[in-house]
Amino acid sequence: MKMSQLFGRTLRDRPSEADLISHVLLLQAGMIHQVSTGVYSYLPLAWKSIKKIEAIIREEMDLAGAQEVKLGILQNREIWKQSGRDEIYGPDMLRLKDRRERELALPPTNEELITETVKTVVQSYNDLPFILYQIQTKFRDEPRPRGGLIRVREFDMMDAYSFDADEDGLDLNYQKMISAYTKSFERCGIKTVIVDADSGAIGGKDSKEFILLADSGEDTIIMCPKCDYAANDEKASFEILRHQPEPAQTLESIHTPNQTSIEDVSNFLNISQQKTIKTIAYMSDNEIILVSIRGDLEINEVKLKNFLKSKELSIADDEQLKKYNLIKGFLSPINKDFKTIIDHSITPETNYCAGANEYGYHHINVLLGRDIMPDSQLDIALAKEGFKCIKCPGNLVSKRGIEIGHVFKLGTTYSTSMNANFLNHEGNPTPIIMGCYGIGVGRILAGSIEQHADEKGIVFPKNIAPYQAIVVSLNTDKKEIKEAALKIYDHLNSNGIETIIDDRNTSAGVKFNDADLLGVPIRIVVSSRNISKDSVEIKIRTANDGELIHLDTVLQKTSQLLSEYK
Amino acid sequence: MKMSQLFGRTLRDRPSEADLISHVLLLQAGMIHQVSTGVYSYLPLAWKSIKKIEAIIREEMDLAGAQEVKLGILQNREIWKQSGRDEIYGPDMLRLKDRRERELALPPTNEELITETVKTVVQSYNDLPFILYQIQTKFRDEPRPRGGLIRVREFDMMDAYSFDADEDGLDLNYQKMISAYTKSFERCGIKTVIVDADSGAIGGKDSKEFILLADSGEDTIIMCPKCDYAANDEKASFEILRHQPEPAQTLESIHTPNQTSIEDVSNFLNISQQKTIKTIAYMSDNEIILVSIRGDLEINEVKLKNFLKSKELSIADDEQLKKYNLIKGFLSPINKDFKTIIDHSITPETNYCAGANEYGYHHINVLLGRDIMPDSQLDIALAKEGFKCIKCPGNLVSKRGIEIGHVFKLGTTYSTSMNANFLNHEGNPTPIIMGCYGIGVGRILAGSIEQHADEKGIVFPKNIAPYQAIVVSLNTDKKEIKEAALKIYDHLNSNGIETIIDDRNTSAGVKFNDADLLGVPIRIVVSSRNISKDSVEIKIRTANDGELIHLDTVLQKTSQLLSEYK
Repeated sequence: MKMSQLFGRTLRDRPSEADLISHVLLLQAGMIHQVSTGVYSYLPLAWKSIKKIEAIIREEMDLAGAQEVKLGILQNREIWKQSGRDEIYGPDMLRLKDRRERELALPPTNEELITETVKTVVQSYNDLPFILYQIQTKFRDEPRPRGGLIRVREFDMMDAYSFDADEDGLDLNYQKMISAYTKSFERCGIKTVIVDADSGAIGGKDSKEFILLADSGEDTIIMCPKCDYAANDEKASFEILRHQPEPAQTLESIHTPNQTSIEDVSNFLNISQQKTIKTIAYMSDNEIILVSIRGDLEINEVKLKNFLKSKELSIADDEQLKKYNLIKGFLSPINKDFKTIIDHSITPETNYCAGANEYGYHHINVLLGRDIMPDSQLDIALAKEGFKCIKCPGNLVSKRGIEIGHVFKLGTTYSTSMNANFLNHEGNPTPIIMGCYGIGVGRILAGSIEQHADEKGIVFPKNIAPYQAIVVSLNTDKKEIKEAALKIYDHLNSNGIETIIDDRNTSAGVKFNDADLLGVPIRIVVSSRNISKDSVEIKIRTANDGELIHLDTVLQKTSQLLSEYK
Repeated sequence: MKMSQLFGRTLRDRPSEADLISHVLLLQAGMIHQVSTGVYSYLPLAWKSIKKIEAIIREEMDLAGAQEVKLGILQNREIWKQSGRDEIYGPDMLRLKDRRERELALPPTNEELITETVKTVVQSYNDLPFILYQIQTKFRDEPRPRGGLIRVREFDMMDAYSFDADEDGLDLNYQKMISAYTKSFERCGIKTVIVDADSGAIGGKDSKEFILLADSGEDTIIMCPKCDYAANDEKASFEILRHQPEPAQTLESIHTPNQTSIEDVSNFLNISQQKTIKTIAYMSDNEIILVSIRGDLEINEVKLKNFLKSKELSIADDEQLKKYNLIKGFLSPINKDFKTIIDHSITPETNYCAGANEYGYHHINVLLGRDIMPDSQLDIALAKEGFKCIKCPGNLVSKRGIEIGHVFKLGTTYSTSMNANFLNHEGNPTPIIMGCYGIGVGRILAGSIEQHADEKGIVFPKNIAPYQAIVVSLNTDKKEIKEAALKIYDHLNSNGIETIIDDRNTSAGVKFNDADLLGVPIRIVVSSRNISKDSVEIKIRTANDGELIHLDTVLQKTSQLLSEYK
């Protein structure tokens, strides 16, 4: 490709409308174009990258034995109602009506449709197992699209689905997908960590996320630097530091005027926060629930919501508290009227301080089992940096990242709701056991820029760079320079090195800046000065200085530098 | 791929819900799955074919110098209003609102968006010319989806757009695209004819269609078997047989009770139909217009609508005729009150018989120029089989076909309405000159089946067959047969011949039927009987009988048969 003919315009200045570096650079390099809020077109250079990413994913999925399909986009909304996700997605799903007023949905994911499709084909255990995948556009009406290709309303996603007769089969396919993902991301030149994750609106049991670590990421990851433990903060656990068992003391009520926060009470009574109990009233689908945790910890609402299976979960407001005679700032875990859930941080042999549900009063010497009689006790604590690792003696650290891939063990959630059965060895209809797996294709492109970009622009990993080499032709007013540059360009291309040439009539400064901005791994500069010595300058994108090499060695040197380049 | 693991189920019987042979066979072969009305998923075999078709198109487009992009799908409806096509597409376009009630459109084509995109990049003549293309899903809310992949509401289309500074540039790019299309279709193994076409809702001037001839097609093509003339019937012209000039006779009114059709009048008065005039009253966007043509010919309403630039055109109903005092069955081209258009078949030196706009009366000796004073005279006649060719002495024939591709010279229609200008050599802002070009990817798959299928099933051209060879392993209960078949399968695949193996535990009859149904070019049968003689049977899909060959020659023979196969 000749840059004089390339469609796209690099900008001298960084666009002001963008914050994330990937968004900034994709716009500045003329690689994407905004169509509507959260919707982008890929222009030629970005699309070349995306096609390479897709090709890598296809190869790895095919090697894992998955079969590629392409599903229809315009789906009947009815199947979303059948699975219950029409309601769960709510305004996040785009819906429309056709000319006959039939309701259609634009899918954010395809569990419903693939289950509908598969059940017309699968009859017995003999037809299982298999994995289907596709790379296709998905739609999600994000309330706050942001960051260019990071949080969009329309995105190219690889979505895969596995179908098995038993749990062992699911485990095997789940592992195959994890392995295919790991290889895909490695080949794309991005570093990801695999973390335990919450399964969210997709449903199902186990799930893991592939997170590209980047400070600009929206997701918070809790990980241990000493072992392999890593989890999304929505899912992360930690080792709680336990108190020494104490003898039980008598429950007492104490006047604590205006002491409504844990910090206040702890200071006022000179009690460690670890010996206090924080109680919060939640509304879970119109039911009021009291939730208690040790005072120094915080409640992880995702864990709580999952346990309660609530559709909507929110902290009760003043009006709701009043309705149930609950005293704000002094809520007590001791009650008989409401469902009460406590975190596993609260232990039986500690005398805690907790609200007394009376204005200006707390209890001291509150005991679990004697005073608090919870309906359930479980892990609903939010893990944070500095907490102890659950697997080793390390201290957890918190990192930011971008979710690039996600794998789920769905089990029979969808096959049950959509009646997708197979006849087992005994001839009995049995729900198919499913898994589902997704990769954000556009996020790999943006994420790789977040991870590798420098102050000069994009630094593409070689396997997903739109071009592997750029020939920068200076002194384009001189015919012999132009011809020498074109000769190198043709030579590299005909030897399988995808090369672009900057043959524009513009200054050397602009050309050098653009070569850096576009992130091409190898730069070859052809100038009057060097060509007179039968040499050109060659430089890798990440080096400061180039090297003069003889014209005859350009192909050999380019290949060598590329093979060493990440 | 092993058929025991392939996702998809062939049906023993032809599905009754389908009429078109491509629809029947794609369903019977388990290649497609209906998602909603007029929306299909491609299952693994069909998707493999589609990917091959896409790859061929990509190669030819790239060779023609076009640059690939991928546009966003969710477009602001606003740009469609700006071009005026929101109204023109009417209920054919799918529209939706997002969570903030912003209006979006799902594009049937992308002239608006590409023009919007290009105008942010193009500044001067220096940035022109170029061609952009993409292969992407399009949406059109067809009132009557039918025929499987032939007339759908969601379809994969290659759409390309050229941008030029002058008409010569457009002509060149238009020819480049015609050439790339011709090569693409040849490589896909389908026969198409290039016909002159009406440009319909896309707008613009010149346009040609690539038609795959098939009796099941919805389009009617008028072509000359003696020369290269071919046109869509909406656009076709023909050579009109002229009368000998006659001396002018006096206009007379004649009583013709109940003679309301041309046939009636011609018989009643014993006048050749070629000497009668047929007049029809049309409503063109609320204006009444009288349209006359020679009695033996018919009006081509597409030509008429294009000339009138009407949004809606319909024959006036009884009420409308009454309102304007027009007498049904006796309409006259002689009038001063209404816009009057006559076809070029009516000549000045003939004495015609025409309605007198009086119940039960016709005029004879009606003369153009003396009695009829038309507002316009032009070609609005419908060409038919048997009519004379406009280019040579041949007789036209009528054929049915399926539109596979379409090329348009748009000119400045969109650049003007959307303000897409470039600075010309004189520094003046000038509208960019555009062309647009489309290929129906799914229609190539379906069309190739329409064109080549036989009573046994699909006959895939080798370049778009999902697999080039199938190894049919009989006697799968015997280990040595299974192994011999797998060995051939591995050998062919590792030598670049994409091969599928039928390793299922089912009867020879089912396997032979399925191999035919799936249309794989080369079939290799491995059986106990033959393997004992170190031989296998090889047969091409279109032959009745196979040939016994030695095991050692399978690769060589397969390659040879493939190279000879279309």
